[in-house]
Amino acid sequence: MGIHAYFRSLNELERIFRCPGKFKFEVHTVAAHSWKVVQYAKTLADIEEKNGATIDWKKLYEITSSHDYGEIFIGDIKTPVKHSSMELRSLIQQVEEGMINNFIKEHIPEEFKSIFYNQLREGKDDSIEGLILEVADKMDQVYEAFSELQKGNTEKEFVVMYRNALVKIKNINLKCVDYFLEKILPDMVNEESISSIDIKRITEEALAL
Amino acid sequence: MGIHAYFRSLNELERIFRCPGKFKFEVHTVAAHSWKVVQYAKTLADIEEKNGATIDWKKLYEITSSHDYGEIFIGDIKTPVKHSSMELRSLIQQVEEGMINNFIKEHIPEEFKSIFYNQLREGKDDSIEGLILEVADKMDQVYEAFSELQKGNTEKEFVVMYRNALVKIKNINLKCVDYFLEKILPDMVNEESISSIDIKRITEEALAL
Amino acid sequence: MGIHAYFRSLNELERIFRCPGKFKFEVHTVAAHSWKVVQYAKTLADIEEKNGATIDWKKLYEITSSHDYGEIFIGDIKTPVKHSSMELRSLIQQVEEGMINNFIKEHIPEEFKSIFYNQLREGKDDSIEGLILEVADKMDQVYEAFSELQKGNTEKEFVVMYRNALVKIKNINLKCVDYFLEKILPDMVNEESISSIDIKRITEEALAL
Amino acid sequence: MGIHAYFRSLNELERIFRCPGKFKFEVHTVAAHSWKVVQYAKTLADIEEKNGATIDWKKLYEITSSHDYGEIFIGDIKTPVKHSSMELRSLIQQVEEGMINNFIKEHIPEEFKSIFYNQLREGKDDSIEGLILEVADKMDQVYEAFSELQKGNTEKEFVVMYRNALVKIKNINLKCVDYFLEKILPDMVNEESISSIDIKRITEEALAL
Amino acid sequence: MGIHAYFRSLNELERIFRCPGKFKFEVHTVAAHSWKVVQYAKTLADIEEKNGATIDWKKLYEITSSHDYGEIFIGDIKTPVKHSSMELRSLIQQVEEGMINNFIKEHIPEEFKSIFYNQLREGKDDSIEGLILEVADKMDQVYEAFSELQKGNTEKEFVVMYRNALVKIKNINLKCVDYFLEKILPDMVNEESISSIDIKRITEEALAL
Amino acid sequence: MGIHAYFRSLNELERIFRCPGKFKFEVHTVAAHSWKVVQYAKTLADIEEKNGATIDWKKLYEITSSHDYGEIFIGDIKTPVKHSSMELRSLIQQVEEGMINNFIKEHIPEEFKSIFYNQLREGKDDSIEGLILEVADKMDQVYEAFSELQKGNTEKEFVVMYRNALVKIKNINLKCVDYFLEKILPDMVNEESISSIDIKRITEEALAL
Repeated sequence: MGIHAYFRSLNELERIFRCPGKFKFEVHTVAAHSWKVVQYAKTLADIEEKNGATIDWKKLYEITSSHDYGEIFIGDIKTPVKHSSMELRSLIQQVEEGMINNFIKEHIPEEFKSIFYNQLREGKDDSIEGLILEVADKMDQVYEAFSELQKGNTEKEFVVMYRNALVKIKNINLKCVDYFLEKILPDMVNEESISSIDIKRITEEALAL
Repeated sequence: MGIHAYFRSLNELERIFRCPGKFKFEVHTVAAHSWKVVQYAKTLADIEEKNGATIDWKKLYEITSSHDYGEIFIGDIKTPVKHSSMELRSLIQQVEEGMINNFIKEHIPEEFKSIFYNQLREGKDDSIEGLILEVADKMDQVYEAFSELQKGNTEKEFVVMYRNALVKIKNINLKCVDYFLEKILPDMVNEESISSIDIKRITEEALAL
Repeated sequence: MGIHAYFRSLNELERIFRCPGKFKFEVHTVAAHSWKVVQYAKTLADIEEKNGATIDWKKLYEITSSHDYGEIFIGDIKTPVKHSSMELRSLIQQVEEGMINNFIKEHIPEEFKSIFYNQLREGKDDSIEGLILEVADKMDQVYEAFSELQKGNTEKEFVVMYRNALVKIKNINLKCVDYFLEKILPDMVNEESISSIDIKRITEEALAL
Repeated sequence: MGIHAYFRSLNELERIFRCPGKFKFEVHTVAAHSWKVVQYAKTLADIEEKNGATIDWKKLYEITSSHDYGEIFIGDIKTPVKHSSMELRSLIQQVEEGMINNFIKEHIPEEFKSIFYNQLREGKDDSIEGLILEVADKMDQVYEAFSELQKGNTEKEFVVMYRNALVKIKNINLKCVDYFLEKILPDMVNEESISSIDIKRITEEALAL
Repeated sequence: MGIHAYFRSLNELERIFRCPGKFKFEVHTVAAHSWKVVQYAKTLADIEEKNGATIDWKKLYEITSSHDYGEIFIGDIKTPVKHSSMELRSLIQQVEEGMINNFIKEHIPEEFKSIFYNQLREGKDDSIEGLILEVADKMDQVYEAFSELQKGNTEKEFVVMYRNALVKIKNINLKCVDYFLEKILPDMVNEESISSIDIKRITEEALAL
Repeated sequence: MGIHAYFRSLNELERIFRCPGKFKFEVHTVAAHSWKVVQYAKTLADIEEKNGATIDWKKLYEITSSHDYGEIFIGDIKTPVKHSSMELRSLIQQVEEGMINNFIKEHIPEEFKSIFYNQLREGKDDSIEGLILEVADKMDQVYEAFSELQKGNTEKEFVVMYRNALVKIKNINLKCVDYFLEKILPDMVNEESISSIDIKRITEEALAL
């Protein structure tokens, strides 16, 4: 098979659920998450452009939309596992890349191979597009976790996810990060919530780190 | 509220299901559909570029990822309703655009208004990017309908959806359409299927129209 | 096909969900909503009868049980769309009626056509049965919205739905409305709730309009 | 509490699923089933009226819409259990009626008690309305079971359900039964199906009993 | 058929949901409940052993894992129904045992019949294993009900279930019950909760009975 | 926290779904899978005992019921990932064991630590109990995959899962394996099926390897 094998495989990300094992009021698929990352990144890049940066839109398009495609092959490995040792983390990353490359080798016709190696490459590098992807990816964790806490979810994992994602974001040196922290995050935190968890305090502590 | 209102609203497309009312083995959200359209379009544009066309990647990124954003405001109006008269169709489109514009007017800060009018504009024009969006959107109907028929779904609506989408695609004059019809579609139609419906014959008839 | 086409189509209302796009703790199908409207209306009509009114039970039966049947054809068009202009609203209503009539023309045998035009007519007229249907339909919105708010749902749409439905009900001049407002609604509002939204105040404000 | 306790309880039938334990492609709630029974019965009664019978529409309305209300109290007891002995069956029926009566005694205001004893009475008597209810109730079993078999369900329970319901229907002496058997059932059986089970043969055998 | 009929039937308990009719944030199947009872019982028996008791592990294994197998045959009869009279309760129990025995008679090969009569016997006797099963079964009701109340569920049924299960547990004279009441229950009750219901007070009242 | 942290964590296996990413007609949780393994193993051990073997029932109880408990910590890592290299496989296993041990260290009171290290140990060793666990675990893959194929699922993954599990089982030298292959498997393969996949042939080929 050829490109059909790739198009057909996209459907699988509609059947992988984020944050398995934890109670959640609303379930998110990796496909929906990928779309939201695409959308956030578009606006974040607009903010950068407005501030004078030059965006490689083709690259941004490619790396945001495909950033979790590899989950089709490796499944959902919990973050603590990945981070348990540098050795394991790098082995898992090698396996993921190896499996994506095998898929391309086996299914993608010769004339498109280089295009697909490019499309499905790991995107989180130090370029402005790579950094925007990292911000957008973490921003969706902020939105997902906030939305659960707001509905009264008492799973500690969502507090941890919210805090860690905020810390990651604030350490990235981009104009769009400033905008997010100063203009977007306050609107979120001020929303009505029934949580007994003090989201404002958690937010302030995370930003003060 | 500002851009947060927009980012927050994206979540709504995870809760709107395609093809309401019909029995389906697998449910698709508008968010997941949007992501798949983004992915198809990327590859279709690569094929065009390979054939010498010039792609405005920023535009393609914008119009594919947001092409169904308006469903947040108007809900899922059935295709036959939209097509029942030119007058109704154009009225509904006016309402949809009016509601998107109202949202921007009310929520988006002055400095970003023009960016958002652009991001959320109707994208299906006669430019190469507009045509690629149309192909990618219909291609997802082909994949959705095929996948139901393949599993033995006997709802006639999926035969109609499959056929109509194919006819729409084949009438668009793009190199990526040729590639789809010659290389991708045959691989799909040759997949194992338990359907009593003769998908090959329907495909051939649609392509012969 | 004949009446089988109609009986078979009823199944579709089990697959259309109310209030698409909004987060909800509990999902309601149009079929279940229709049944609850049938049940409320029966008791409301009993209250009217007790107060001396004469009820056409056949008519009430027909119009309550079929009042959302048209959603099979037009899908779930959001209320703000319908209300965006008188012109659009009336066009959509025409399309819905046209589609129901087409269905009858195409599927229902000659001898039953008049029965079905009657069964599936728009029922919300100024007769006592039409008014009871309107009250029962809005009462289900009150119950649905209250049940979400009570569980801590912070979507503003449910506050709006609750308030608007109450206002609609209180402006209908029926004995059963008095009974609902004086005897039933207070029991509802006094139920245990974890909401941070002040449902009592919203109720009082709506009734004072 | 008063009538609010009754209106609120209706929601529970949206959370009781028919045919628990068996694999099914589509799940049906008791609320949706109740609504479909209401709809079938309306048309069946129209057929009877057309043939000269007199229908008590109020009674038909009451007994069809509430015929499974008692499941709120007793849950879903499997048919074979109910039928295991006349003694057990009659005990369970006594318990169900006792619980409905207790609910009325406890929650319904004095002035409405007689209305509710009437509304929630067992409806399957030998009157024409009682017989129509029995036909409509069994007709929904025919539709539910057929729809599963048609999709390729191999659970024997649905063959049994289909056959038993057909046998029950054909032994009821009503004009609408003749119409169902002669005009509606053949359309159903002729629908496209992927089943390896010979539904036509099963139908013929059941009707020949 | 032989033992395959039994192995295949296990799947049915994955499709029977506990506590039908009531709103719940999280649904539990009888299969998952059975597994948790197996797990609790294992630890409870370890506590007994540590305190000098002798456990028949084969028996404990058999009676915990199969304690709800009979629900495949009788469905989910609501507790109040079972308890409405001693006569009905004992009749239902006879029917359940009769159906299990019929299943064994019909499907299990001669050489295994005695093994299966043993495996599927009613396990809640006065032996230490029978008492541990009773504690573990009620402990899962405590966990299920607590988890709902903690998330803000206002259904009174969960308060009743929580209280009744606690009362049942505390009246069983086992070391593991002491451990549960003194060490495990306080940790549960001290968890973060958004409930407006005072779970601590309910707990203290139940233990004081 | 103490043992409550462990009891509470069991709930997580009700929220992890087997075989993520693939289309399936029926979803299985790890909790339900664990229960079925417990049930199969009990009968398999009975067969061994009948053939003269001695079973350590406490050990069998412990290792079957907890055999997938570690998925709470590591999530669902796809089989091909685990098998991509001996190095990765052993690293992942180390991480899983490390995380279980950390959990015990952190949450389980001193006096129970050794009990829990024992309860949650890896159980698939060469003892008769370890082998029975392996057979029961693979047997559930056979049942899961067969049930999908029987319903017409065309995902190749289920053919692979069915075949690989059968091959694993047949290479284990136990009396219960002989019984499974000679008496149980033929009954399964002879069930009615709508699959276009020749399950009998696949079965024969797997057994001939």
